[in-house]
Amino acid sequence: MKILLTISYKGTGYVGWQNQKNGKSVQKTIEKAISKLLRQDVELDGSGRTDAGVHAFGQTATFEATSNSFFSNFTSKGSKKICLNSARFVRAINAYLPSDIYVTSAKEVSENFHARYSAKEKVYEYHLQVGKNPILGGLVGEFNQMPNLELIKEAAQILVGTHDFSSFCSAKAEVSDYVRTINYIKIYMTKADQIIFEISGNGFLYNMVRIIVGTLYDVGIGKIKPEEVKEILSAKDRTKAGKTAPASGLYLKKVKY
Amino acid sequence: MKILLTISYKGTGYVGWQNQKNGKSVQKTIEKAISKLLRQDVELDGSGRTDAGVHAFGQTATFEATSNSFFSNFTSKGSKKICLNSARFVRAINAYLPSDIYVTSAKEVSENFHARYSAKEKVYEYHLQVGKNPILGGLVGEFNQMPNLELIKEAAQILVGTHDFSSFCSAKAEVSDYVRTINYIKIYMTKADQIIFEISGNGFLYNMVRIIVGTLYDVGIGKIKPEEVKEILSAKDRTKAGKTAPASGLYLKKVKY
Repeated sequence: MKILLTISYKGTGYVGWQNQKNGKSVQKTIEKAISKLLRQDVELDGSGRTDAGVHAFGQTATFEATSNSFFSNFTSKGSKKICLNSARFVRAINAYLPSDIYVTSAKEVSENFHARYSAKEKVYEYHLQVGKNPILGGLVGEFNQMPNLELIKEAAQILVGTHDFSSFCSAKAEVSDYVRTINYIKIYMTKADQIIFEISGNGFLYNMVRIIVGTLYDVGIGKIKPEEVKEILSAKDRTKAGKTAPASGLYLKKVKY
Repeated sequence: MKILLTISYKGTGYVGWQNQKNGKSVQKTIEKAISKLLRQDVELDGSGRTDAGVHAFGQTATFEATSNSFFSNFTSKGSKKICLNSARFVRAINAYLPSDIYVTSAKEVSENFHARYSAKEKVYEYHLQVGKNPILGGLVGEFNQMPNLELIKEAAQILVGTHDFSSFCSAKAEVSDYVRTINYIKIYMTKADQIIFEISGNGFLYNMVRIIVGTLYDVGIGKIKPEEVKEILSAKDRTKAGKTAPASGLYLKKVKY
């Protein structure tokens, strides 16, 4: 049976979600924990990668589980059905995980469900810290100047909608289609001088959220005019946009199906 | 000349503020940085200790500086005065400090100013996390159940005012006077299921804030009735109050002079 996990993690100590030759990945750490718990080999299918240092409130991933003690037999209307004892599984798997990874839910999904391809919407948050924050080191992206929030909001509206986001995609990306839809960008300030960007879209290119934040910051400090963001979009050229904001401020908030 | 520093730090990697035989203290780390920068021996006089794992937004401490390049000669009304070039000093000292300690301000104070004895008010914050938070590990105090906020607020009001807080003081404390004044206790909930306690007082006994939070949590989950807090106070007996809340959730917010 296919199980869908929702996972929260702090990315600071990992090479990223995806397994890599060198270093500890979030994916491999969870795979090992499940293997130990269920005594079977597993491979996790994530909703997408997160880079080294990027965090998640709600990453999702599936794996194929063979029947075991966490799955109970239920008889409903004469037919026997094997069901996941979700709460029990969540408690057990978290006991096998390090303190910076936490499985928040587990549920059975149909065999044709795919963590990545079935996703309808992804929501990211970026936590931009103005100035230094010795307490939240690794959990925010630090920027020197206080930007103008109104300018940022004006420019952000230009990015909402369906566009070719080539200018907002790392040159390292290997994709053929750069068209994505941004549903909304919410921007607000917290009491602790943090600017939170909440960005929802049908999918994101490599480094797209971080390049958007870096560019909007440049708008906020007057380096780029809001209306120039239109030109940056149509240029389809990565070098026209702003810098890639630090990974430490990025959070995969939610994957909606 | 006497210099007053305001310091923010993450206490996770330290044995606490105070120098100790074993392990790295916040105080010693800052003393070493100042010594390197000013090429003189210094001793910091803090507003008070913070325990291992406790954080600070606004700890304060003074040291005696001998004249050097960070202090400029100003001539005002005919008399020469040596002044601290505050912004320059702050920039320089932060370059010598690790990323989890940050000096936010430096200013000259009179020779009879004392970081601890001149303090009129101290404000602490406690960040109580309901459930697990893999991202904020070490920065919150984790508790299992969602407590009733109204019960907590009711009980907190009993503690406000001038009382003998013996019941809310670690047995390890070596003091003769247990009377302290709590000015206010503000309690509110954040979007991320965190309950923030802001407690202001003229001074606090050893572990006092953490024992108050532990006791108020017990009120919130129905283990202690709000009105019983009155009896706990008058018992003057540490064993009558609740558990000491974890150090990781405690922040020294502000010291007012």
